[in-house]
Amino acid sequence: MATPTVQGIVLLAHGSRDPRWREPIEAVAARTRALSPEAQVCCAYLELAEPDLRTAAAALVDEGARAIRVVPLFLGMGKHAREDIPRQLDALRAEWPALAFTLAPTVGESPQVIDLLARIAVEI
Amino acid sequence: MATPTVQGIVLLAHGSRDPRWREPIEAVAARTRALSPEAQVCCAYLELAEPDLRTAAAALVDEGARAIRVVPLFLGMGKHAREDIPRQLDALRAEWPALAFTLAPTVGESPQVIDLLARIAVEI
Repeated sequence: MATPTVQGIVLLAHGSRDPRWREPIEAVAARTRALSPEAQVCCAYLELAEPDLRTAAAALVDEGARAIRVVPLFLGMGKHAREDIPRQLDALRAEWPALAFTLAPTVGESPQVIDLLARIAVEI
Repeated sequence: MATPTVQGIVLLAHGSRDPRWREPIEAVAARTRALSPEAQVCCAYLELAEPDLRTAAAALVDEGARAIRVVPLFLGMGKHAREDIPRQLDALRAEWPALAFTLAPTVGESPQVIDLLARIAVEI
């Protein structure tokens, strides 16, 4: 049954034909659900894995989400992160103009992520 | 001038033709150098960018590194992380048997990374 106040979160990763590639992404989704049990959380992939962002967003809309936050789980800041994902967000906004779509910064640009990866590198 | 006790750290990422892709990886390297100024830190790439792991390791050996830690900066756990990188480490060990090579866990498997990405996703 639709719940008008549902917050949707899409964890958007690159994708791979290899099903095990997705395991860490799905682990982030599980942890996100634990931290925010009221949110509807799903994974989506740009390439080589299902669902794509539009399919994931449509499922969240069907579940009653009125606000959807897309979180790009990319370490690199290439064309996917800089151009393709913002363009996909524009397409979502055009398709569902009454919904609030938010594009989070790409995680590779997060100072917290950069610091944690460096701490892992030096085994702090 | 070679310094026998140098610890080398290679931040090993996927790589891309797009030079801006590497910016977060280079930011991790800069932060790693800040946290561990005594270490020799460099980036290396599996594909589409230079240097590759062998070239990066050879440079560290030339700089006097006797122990080299390779840190895979991959979020997905696909064939690259599970098979290709361990095989490349085997090749390094065969080429420089007197050196100590350590392969760190892939960062996408780190519970700390998974937790931080989930916290970013829910904006905690």
